Amino acid sequence: MTAIVKGHPSTNDDSYQLNTTTLIRHSARNYPEREIVYRTADGGWGRYTYGDAYARIKRIANALTDLGVKPGDVVGILDWNSKRHFELYWAIPGTGAVMLQMNLRLAPEDVGYVATHGGASVVLVDESLLSVAESVAPFAPEVTWVVMSDKPLSEIATTLPNVRHLEDLVAKASPEIDWPMIDESSAYSACYTTGTTGRPKGVYYSHRAIYLHTLTQASSYGMSAADAVMLITPMFHSQSWGLPQSAVYVAAKIVLPGRYSAVDTDMLADVMIAENVTVANGAPAIFQPMLDYIETLDVKPDFSRTRLLSGATEPALSLMRGFHDLTGADFIHAYGATETAPMAFVNYGRKVTLQGKVTEDEWWSIKRYQGLPAGGVDVRIVDPEGNDLPHDGNSKGEVLLRGPWITARYHKLDDDADRFLDGYWRSGDIGTIDQNGYLKLADRLKDVIKSGGEWISSIDMENAIIAHPRVTEAAVIGVEHPKWQERPVVIMVTNDGEDVALAEIHELLHGAFAKWQLPDTILYVDALPRTSVGKLHKKVMRVQHGDLYRGA
Amino acid sequence: MTAIVKGHPSTNDDSYQLNTTTLIRHSARNYPEREIVYRTADGGWGRYTYGDAYARIKRIANALTDLGVKPGDVVGILDWNSKRHFELYWAIPGTGAVMLQMNLRLAPEDVGYVATHGGASVVLVDESLLSVAESVAPFAPEVTWVVMSDKPLSEIATTLPNVRHLEDLVAKASPEIDWPMIDESSAYSACYTTGTTGRPKGVYYSHRAIYLHTLTQASSYGMSAADAVMLITPMFHSQSWGLPQSAVYVAAKIVLPGRYSAVDTDMLADVMIAENVTVANGAPAIFQPMLDYIETLDVKPDFSRTRLLSGATEPALSLMRGFHDLTGADFIHAYGATETAPMAFVNYGRKVTLQGKVTEDEWWSIKRYQGLPAGGVDVRIVDPEGNDLPHDGNSKGEVLLRGPWITARYHKLDDDADRFLDGYWRSGDIGTIDQNGYLKLADRLKDVIKSGGEWISSIDMENAIIAHPRVTEAAVIGVEHPKWQERPVVIMVTNDGEDVALAEIHELLHGAFAKWQLPDTILYVDALPRTSVGKLHKKVMRVQHGDLYRGA
Repeated sequence: MTAIVKGHPSTNDDSYQLNTTTLIRHSARNYPEREIVYRTADGGWGRYTYGDAYARIKRIANALTDLGVKPGDVVGILDWNSKRHFELYWAIPGTGAVMLQMNLRLAPEDVGYVATHGGASVVLVDESLLSVAESVAPFAPEVTWVVMSDKPLSEIATTLPNVRHLEDLVAKASPEIDWPMIDESSAYSACYTTGTTGRPKGVYYSHRAIYLHTLTQASSYGMSAADAVMLITPMFHSQSWGLPQSAVYVAAKIVLPGRYSAVDTDMLADVMIAENVTVANGAPAIFQPMLDYIETLDVKPDFSRTRLLSGATEPALSLMRGFHDLTGADFIHAYGATETAPMAFVNYGRKVTLQGKVTEDEWWSIKRYQGLPAGGVDVRIVDPEGNDLPHDGNSKGEVLLRGPWITARYHKLDDDADRFLDGYWRSGDIGTIDQNGYLKLADRLKDVIKSGGEWISSIDMENAIIAHPRVTEAAVIGVEHPKWQERPVVIMVTNDGEDVALAEIHELLHGAFAKWQLPDTILYVDALPRTSVGKLHKKVMRVQHGDLYRGA
Repeated sequence: MTAIVKGHPSTNDDSYQLNTTTLIRHSARNYPEREIVYRTADGGWGRYTYGDAYARIKRIANALTDLGVKPGDVVGILDWNSKRHFELYWAIPGTGAVMLQMNLRLAPEDVGYVATHGGASVVLVDESLLSVAESVAPFAPEVTWVVMSDKPLSEIATTLPNVRHLEDLVAKASPEIDWPMIDESSAYSACYTTGTTGRPKGVYYSHRAIYLHTLTQASSYGMSAADAVMLITPMFHSQSWGLPQSAVYVAAKIVLPGRYSAVDTDMLADVMIAENVTVANGAPAIFQPMLDYIETLDVKPDFSRTRLLSGATEPALSLMRGFHDLTGADFIHAYGATETAPMAFVNYGRKVTLQGKVTEDEWWSIKRYQGLPAGGVDVRIVDPEGNDLPHDGNSKGEVLLRGPWITARYHKLDDDADRFLDGYWRSGDIGTIDQNGYLKLADRLKDVIKSGGEWISSIDMENAIIAHPRVTEAAVIGVEHPKWQERPVVIMVTNDGEDVALAEIHELLHGAFAKWQLPDTILYVDALPRTSVGKLHKKVMRVQHGDLYRGA
């Protein structure tokens, strides 16, 4: 840990705490007329204002207190990107309680684990998700369930025991509140990671962390009251990237698309156009079908003020340029994780100063990178021994992050020391930082091949091998080797079921890889193992082929 | 003081301190190529980059340490808005020392008082200000003087004892630095107020205060890397309103006009045009002659992206509209004080949501107000007993402010309790807040007339009286009265030296003032007493006429 140096006393009162309540109070005070557009339970659309929302938030906070919620309690939410969910973002933390986001896409046992391990005493559930709640309830026996619906409780059928009704509580609650000043290091909200290995891990964000994340994000994307922000990324997934908070802080119009499925991208595009959305978050898997839909429209929308914030995977050049050429939208790649609140790297805004220094094509290839670190985030890339690597665009290392909103531990987890180094969080991602400061991710640490004291990127090797005309799928894994620590092994599917000569593969890899990095072994299979969401299941492959070099 | 409520522990490391060094490191890392344009000692112009500046900043910090400056020490500056001054904004606080701004326009004795009371051990002075330093030196005997110049020390004639030379120290200093992590409640910088009564009072801003002020200001004005920011307001005057810091944070181009006088506004306008400046700060006294100059140009500049930040006095409608109609610039009134770092109120950005709700003329009259409170600033307006007044646009009260960057005390001043109330700073300004949340200042508390338990605005009354065709100057002061506490007394100059009938004055005030508020006495003079900067010297008038109602 870095030593803290005391300087000269100031005349500020630094005990004035950074509370998220300040953000919503600020915008409700200065922009009470600003609109919030939301999808209703029946798929229609409603709209109200920041002033209306703030009046609701005060009543909901009082209703929760009336229900027995106290500062330090944990209150869970199972909901889509709805109007009530938005209100709870402020009402729950405003009382001093923690808002626990519950990922409705996890297995019921895992959602129940999150509620129980996270310490939730109350969980609010949207009526449309009662069946999820009912399957979770056996794994979360301590929870008081509160249903959210426009219908009266008498018309709602559920097997949940002793269920309460939010609107009944709100109707009885006082409209006025004297918000507590909450210690800024207390938790504002909590999210659990959804790693493929082991149980979800809890990250509890402090009020201070979210306050700073909010202000930093607002300026990182140049957000202002002139923006209209649509939250596509689920509010239970890294808090929709903290965009609900920064949208409120700048008093942007907010668009809440409610419940939608992966095939509703036409609807999302229509709303973007109708509401003049200037900021939206999502991933290539969402934005690509939106672009396909916009291509079919006779009149192309004008998105020249719009920033599309895209995470999860590196966007294709055709997607970024497609949006730009068709609509004027700026496609922005960003990188983060639940552990980083999530803003860590942002690829936005530097074109103005790089003009004349890079060509147009170079600029588009820079735009595919994960971007530059956000203000306040310290970054290191380190080799397996934890030594810092140069920022030369070539040296691959694990990305380490530190800052006011980067997690420094996991909730109630004693054996997390290997995930942290000198106060930095170990991302588990392998990447390079180039001379311009841009991060480019190469691989996940667990998928990288550690051979001869160096790292080989499995993804780079796969991308090279897939260029062979007869290869339809390829995976490269590291297999334990008595002499080299690990060696790369190629597992592939060919279009004719016939083998490919090793020399042909070596030829594809020539130049990009050193001779000692070239694989000696190719395994042929009918299909590569994949996870439930379609990702290569390398953990399975490593188990299947882990003995390949035993005794070699 | 508000009680702080403990909530649930977070997993963040909230001991990670908010340091201003983070801001410059961030932009030097992400935007090393960004330009800084500066005026040279000979009146020419130079330019370098954030990367160059940061390299200089590291060396200057090391040079100061080599000179013996330690964390907690106070280092003063006597300089214009120069390149070195900009570098010192980061180098001094980066070491853990405090940057003390010294107002070169104060009397030498007052500047010496600031150095001594402020605790400065070292003062850096620009060569062009050596004569000021020499007149100050007898009042600041403990100070080590360091001259800043491109010339060698041997060519500089000065009577300052044992003077050192910054560039000599920098040449010997190491280019690398391991910045300390400074306790965020330690002072980053200090400014002294320039009140007309008593000695200047010291305000010491913490690193935390400035970090939050910087982020908030960046989003309050929608600043981004696409901006070019010119610092017109002196960097020794409320830190040029914190604009050097927010410009750096967003990696804007920075324009430092160096030394200029009140008649150099043509030069300022020319630079604005040449450098495509999009943000500049000043006051109507600066902006009016700039507008007059622009009116003479054949080709009017395109300032459609430009925000002119204006403080000190309410801008005339003709000035705001003149800039807008001629250049497209957005004229922004803002309000603050040394005690508020200084951003407290900002009149920017709401037009987008008030569209259709107010007429164009109403909008322009709203734009003359002091604006809406900045995010994170708590506001109250209170009557003389400290009771909160409604925000109805009519109820006049003293403006009280609280927040992370609002001062909570004065440096080494024991008798400052009357300047604070329940953790709020008493601004001494009287104003109203209207239904839309806008502050409109009416008067200074010391100039307001306290009569019959109510407040009468001297400024409102003066503005009404000056409308009389024969009145060329008018001041209204409160004079002690045995029955009414105070009564308004008019002091005026007429164009023909003849008196004006009291009834004519009452007629002008009719409607805007209650009958009991109307003045009974008019005094005629040849000229009104004014301060050295041309303001009405009401303190003098109150002394001159204080006995008027004695024994009444």
